Amino acid sequence: MRPHIVIVGAGFGGIKAAQRLAKEDVDITLIDRNNFHLFQPLLYQVSTSMLSIEEIAYPTRAFFRKNKNIDFMLAHVQKLDLVNKEVITPYKKVKYDYLILSAGSVTNYFGMEQFALNTYGMKTLREAIHIRNHVLHMFERAERETDPEIRKRMLTFVCVGGGPTGVEEAGALSELIYTAMKKEYHRLDFEKDVSIILIQAEASLLPMMPPDLREETMRVLKKKRVKVMLNAIAADCTRDKLTLKDGTEIPTNTVIWAAGVQAVPFIAKSNCCEVDRAGRAIVTKTLQIPNHPEVFAIGDCAHFEQDGRPLPTVAPVSTQGSIVCSENIIALINNRPLKEFVYHDVGSMATIGCGQAVMAWGKLKMKGFWAWYIWMTVHLLRLAGTHTNITVAMKWTWNLLSGTRLGRLITNIPDTRDDR
Amino acid sequence: MRPHIVIVGAGFGGIKAAQRLAKEDVDITLIDRNNFHLFQPLLYQVSTSMLSIEEIAYPTRAFFRKNKNIDFMLAHVQKLDLVNKEVITPYKKVKYDYLILSAGSVTNYFGMEQFALNTYGMKTLREAIHIRNHVLHMFERAERETDPEIRKRMLTFVCVGGGPTGVEEAGALSELIYTAMKKEYHRLDFEKDVSIILIQAEASLLPMMPPDLREETMRVLKKKRVKVMLNAIAADCTRDKLTLKDGTEIPTNTVIWAAGVQAVPFIAKSNCCEVDRAGRAIVTKTLQIPNHPEVFAIGDCAHFEQDGRPLPTVAPVSTQGSIVCSENIIALINNRPLKEFVYHDVGSMATIGCGQAVMAWGKLKMKGFWAWYIWMTVHLLRLAGTHTNITVAMKWTWNLLSGTRLGRLITNIPDTRDDR
Repeated sequence: MRPHIVIVGAGFGGIKAAQRLAKEDVDITLIDRNNFHLFQPLLYQVSTSMLSIEEIAYPTRAFFRKNKNIDFMLAHVQKLDLVNKEVITPYKKVKYDYLILSAGSVTNYFGMEQFALNTYGMKTLREAIHIRNHVLHMFERAERETDPEIRKRMLTFVCVGGGPTGVEEAGALSELIYTAMKKEYHRLDFEKDVSIILIQAEASLLPMMPPDLREETMRVLKKKRVKVMLNAIAADCTRDKLTLKDGTEIPTNTVIWAAGVQAVPFIAKSNCCEVDRAGRAIVTKTLQIPNHPEVFAIGDCAHFEQDGRPLPTVAPVSTQGSIVCSENIIALINNRPLKEFVYHDVGSMATIGCGQAVMAWGKLKMKGFWAWYIWMTVHLLRLAGTHTNITVAMKWTWNLLSGTRLGRLITNIPDTRDDR
Repeated sequence: MRPHIVIVGAGFGGIKAAQRLAKEDVDITLIDRNNFHLFQPLLYQVSTSMLSIEEIAYPTRAFFRKNKNIDFMLAHVQKLDLVNKEVITPYKKVKYDYLILSAGSVTNYFGMEQFALNTYGMKTLREAIHIRNHVLHMFERAERETDPEIRKRMLTFVCVGGGPTGVEEAGALSELIYTAMKKEYHRLDFEKDVSIILIQAEASLLPMMPPDLREETMRVLKKKRVKVMLNAIAADCTRDKLTLKDGTEIPTNTVIWAAGVQAVPFIAKSNCCEVDRAGRAIVTKTLQIPNHPEVFAIGDCAHFEQDGRPLPTVAPVSTQGSIVCSENIIALINNRPLKEFVYHDVGSMATIGCGQAVMAWGKLKMKGFWAWYIWMTVHLLRLAGTHTNITVAMKWTWNLLSGTRLGRLITNIPDTRDDR
């Protein structure tokens, strides 16, 4: 019998691990709750009508056409049973010899139910489509609204979270609204009625960036008419209003929550290993779960300490981890010694808009058009599929030149939140 | 006061009429239940994962960026009040001086509730996305299904209706399944388990085509492993089964209903004018509603007789009608005599798959690759937006060469029909 490896999650880490292990003499089951691999870093471009879903999501099975030893299973994992070596799904229990947890993260509302109910998350494709539908719908409703208070509230868009997701979403919203939408809603007064607000709990945006790039970010956002509120902590949220800790009230129907992530909840719920506050499985230097050498965890759902701090929840951590963990599984099978994981920082970057980005890599710092150009190239190279590479490059160029947004389609019957 | 023209429906006719009238000294309100113009003839390519929604839907407001005299209104029209000259929507009553009804058609279930409940329509973007999600999901479920009967039922796809929509859908499904899907579901036996069936009530497919092209269509479909059943009338439908009038039972979870259309129901419901059996407003030679010279109806929601027969529900009828009706409105405003509408047949075409189509125009007949090539060019030229023209052309070429389908994304939580 060949060893059976189960991989939970078809994100950056899961796909890479499966690709590497597929070449070995093993059987693999790859489980994911979606039938596609999502290029998360560009999710904000779907939510702001720039890219289509086909451009950032790629059918998972298409990666493994030639790998008959890989089975894909569309399922929500409910629980882990590390004692009996089983992954429990609604359809069946999947036995494993080796397990890779690369299941990623979900939005973290830090236990505040009112935010889970009344804000829009930014982690899944469905959430991005919801934001797109909702924002477009707010403009349609605002144009026929006669009460100026309600109209202003409908056109106030708040992003909570001053990390890359929040910054990118706020910048992209500004471009969507002030370039594409402004030309087409002849009856709305954009200067008077539209507000885009970015709420950051800390003293600066993009805290992982060097100070001058943080300032550049502030400057560009200001130019894009995004109002940045620093040291501002979201305290309460209803359908019509966001309240800050200092009592400030912001009337709005749109709060986009980009304030944090936590590991997928089934790991902590399974009570099978030690997890940190964000529900991430704490792993050894070799990426294993202590006392369960056959179980590995990588990426957003793993807590790996390096230089006294857990690694950040970014794609390269997951990709680099997947290489070491697949090598270690092969080492285990062949009774060879395991390798310790060392993360090599590839820097951080954030795009604030079309033609504008900031990036830092060690001592190298860049901003403006060329930072954006590199950002674009890096992302393009990592997108799955040659066809997509071409169309996305075309779309970005087209957009830079024409300022249009082809994705402004309301596809869903507005959800209940819109029936306020 | 400038005359106020209300146009209901932003399809082929509505958009064209609005574009023509926008140049005149009038105010226009364009009302549609969607915020986009849909290129209906390619809807089947969205339902079969070929094109993305952005490629066949174009934001309606984007057509009228420079026309300040056009207001767009996103609303479901509920009723017409021709006496008080009002169009009634949930938000407000819209007064008009002149009215163009270009509201199109919806699926016709001919009063059979069980088909409305248990089949998939093919008229709206949402319906196309539903079909896409459902078909992909059936394959995921079938692969893990152990009961061979149930598996076979999940992989039996039935299209009802032997007109262009049914033929195109069946052909495209075959390509999706036997080119893209077959490579990726390693555990399924496609020869044994998959069936694609096309049900036609009449004695031949595409009755408007000359006999040799009908036979060509049969031949190509057979090659694509589509089982065509002629003189077969759908009589009953449950969640698991389609029953024909002769008693034949086809176990299936997927019945796609392409058997007919009727005018949008609000016209007949308004009891304001004479309608035919399909709910279409019967119009005069000048496209007016009798006794209401200020009200015009065109396209799928109008019944216009020529050569003793009502015109077919195809795009050119609507486009040609929109030109005459906008000219007639200007004539009315200026007290000039009206023009009678004469439809010029532009022939009919249907594509049976990538590289294969049939077309007839008067005595000219074509089939095979060059018919497909012309079909492709005609459709491309009529798609809104240069960017879209390029990406769609690329996608079709890419698909012809590689046989891939990038749109195979399950985006919705499967609807209740999938929880059988």
